[in-house]
Amino acid sequence: MTGLSLHCEFARKILSGFIANEVRKTGFSRVIVGLSGGLDSALSAYLGAEALGAENVLALLMPYKTSSSESRAHAELIVKELGIQSDLIDITPMVDAYFERFPEADQVRRGNKMARERMTILFDVSAKFRALVLGTSNKTELLLGYGTLYGDMASAINPLGDLYKTQVRALAGHIGIPEAIIRKEPSGDLWVGQTDEAELGFTYEEVDQVLHLMVDRRFEIPDIVAAGFDEQFVRAVLAKIQSSQYKRRLPLIAKISARTIDRDFRYPRDWGK
Amino acid sequence: MTGLSLHCEFARKILSGFIANEVRKTGFSRVIVGLSGGLDSALSAYLGAEALGAENVLALLMPYKTSSSESRAHAELIVKELGIQSDLIDITPMVDAYFERFPEADQVRRGNKMARERMTILFDVSAKFRALVLGTSNKTELLLGYGTLYGDMASAINPLGDLYKTQVRALAGHIGIPEAIIRKEPSGDLWVGQTDEAELGFTYEEVDQVLHLMVDRRFEIPDIVAAGFDEQFVRAVLAKIQSSQYKRRLPLIAKISARTIDRDFRYPRDWGK
Repeated sequence: MTGLSLHCEFARKILSGFIANEVRKTGFSRVIVGLSGGLDSALSAYLGAEALGAENVLALLMPYKTSSSESRAHAELIVKELGIQSDLIDITPMVDAYFERFPEADQVRRGNKMARERMTILFDVSAKFRALVLGTSNKTELLLGYGTLYGDMASAINPLGDLYKTQVRALAGHIGIPEAIIRKEPSGDLWVGQTDEAELGFTYEEVDQVLHLMVDRRFEIPDIVAAGFDEQFVRAVLAKIQSSQYKRRLPLIAKISARTIDRDFRYPRDWGK
Repeated sequence: MTGLSLHCEFARKILSGFIANEVRKTGFSRVIVGLSGGLDSALSAYLGAEALGAENVLALLMPYKTSSSESRAHAELIVKELGIQSDLIDITPMVDAYFERFPEADQVRRGNKMARERMTILFDVSAKFRALVLGTSNKTELLLGYGTLYGDMASAINPLGDLYKTQVRALAGHIGIPEAIIRKEPSGDLWVGQTDEAELGFTYEEVDQVLHLMVDRRFEIPDIVAAGFDEQFVRAVLAKIQSSQYKRRLPLIAKISARTIDRDFRYPRDWGK
C-alpha cells in the first residue's frame, strides 16, 4: 500500500507556504497554537515557525491537574527546540469551578469541556497577541469525528487537516521532531492512561489505509474488502464517518429566504461588488 | 420596501417543522437553548416548544455577575409562558477564574470569553440532557459578523439564521412573545448599558434593508444607492460582510491530497457507499 506515502519535502513546503499566505492575507503576522505535548500540535508549531519565524509563534500550554508530566515535558522540549514564545495557563480552576455543579459528570463530558476551555483560551489570547489560531486536527481524526466539536477541532487555519495520522508521523520525522514525541503512543491525555488506539479499537496504520481507499480513492466497500481488509472493520469505519458528519459542517440553518448563509451565500467573492 | 415582509404563519410552520425534522433525523427528541432574556433566544425557545412540545425543551440561563436583572426576569418569563424546563448556571466563577490571569483584558475580550463559556456549557449539558443545541443567531448578525465565533454563533441547528432581525421581531409578535421582550432595545448584555444599535452605529431597520438588497436581491452598490441609501453606509455594510467571512466558514484546511475535507469531501452522501 503506497497510496499513503508522502513526499515529505513537498508537503513541508506546501504547508508552511499555506500558513505564510493565509496569515498574510488576513493582515496578521503571527500564529498561536495549543501545545499538548503530542505529535500533532508539535508539527503545527514546527510548520508555523518555519512559515513565520520562531518569534511569530506563541505556544500555549494548557494542562489540567491530571495531565501527564511527560506531556508537559514534551511541550517544553518543543518550545525550546524551536525557540518560540510560550505561556502556560492551567485550566484546572475554570474546569473544576464548572464541575462542582456536575460532580457526577463522566470522563467524556470532562474531556470535552476541557478541550472547549482550551479553545476559548486560545481564541482569547489570539486577540491579545494578534494572531491566528493554528489548527492541530489531522485528517484521520476529522474523518472519524475523533475530537471535540468547537474544542480541539476549532481553529482559524489548519495545516494538518489533509494529512492522515501516519502521514503526520512521516512528516514529523522528516522535519526533525524529537523521536520521543514521534514514537510515543498517541493520546488525547484527557484522562490518565488514555490512548487513542485503545479507545478507537484499531491502529492508525490500519484505519488510515481504509480511509485512504474510501475517501481519496473512492473505493466501494467490496473493493476495500478485496484489497484485504475485514468487512466488519470497513463498515465500522464508514459508520464513524457518517455519524460524525455534523462535526465537519457549520450549524444547519433553516432555509426560508432566496439566499441562505452557507447554502446559496457562502463567500463574499461569490457575488458582485 | 416590502422585500423584508414575512409571511409569519408560513415562516412559523417552516421553522418549527425544520426543528422537528432535524431533531428526529439525528435520533434525538430534545433541544437545549441558552436563554439570555433577549428576543432571538426567546424566539428559538418558542419555536422549539412548538416543534417538540414544552417537555422536550431545556432552557439554560447563564448570567454573569454584571448581567442585567431585567434580562434574567425576561428569561424567566419565557420559561413560565412556555412551561419549558430550565436551569440556571452562573458563569461568574469560571470567567473570573480565567481573568485573574488577565486583569487588563478589555470588554471585548471579556464578552467573547463569556459567549464561549456559555457555548461550552450548552454543549456539555446537551450531552447530559441528550439534546441538540438550538442556535439563536439571526441573519443580520451572521452577515455582519456581529457575534462570537465558537460562542453564540455555534449551535447544532439554527432556526433563525435566515431571518433578519426585523423579521425576528415580526415573527415574535405573530407568535405572541411578550411585548416587553419585543420592544426593548436589543443588547448582547455583555457589559452594562450595551445596546446593539449604539455599538453598530445604525439601526436594524436600516441595515436589514441594505442587507436584503445586497444579499437576497443581488443589487450592485449603485443600485442600492439609487434606491435611497447613503453610499458610505452601503460600503461600510459590504466591508463588514467581507471582513467577517471567516466567522461563517469552517477552519481553512491546507489542501494536499486528492480529496480534502470541506472542499472535495463535504458529506457522506456525496460519495458511493
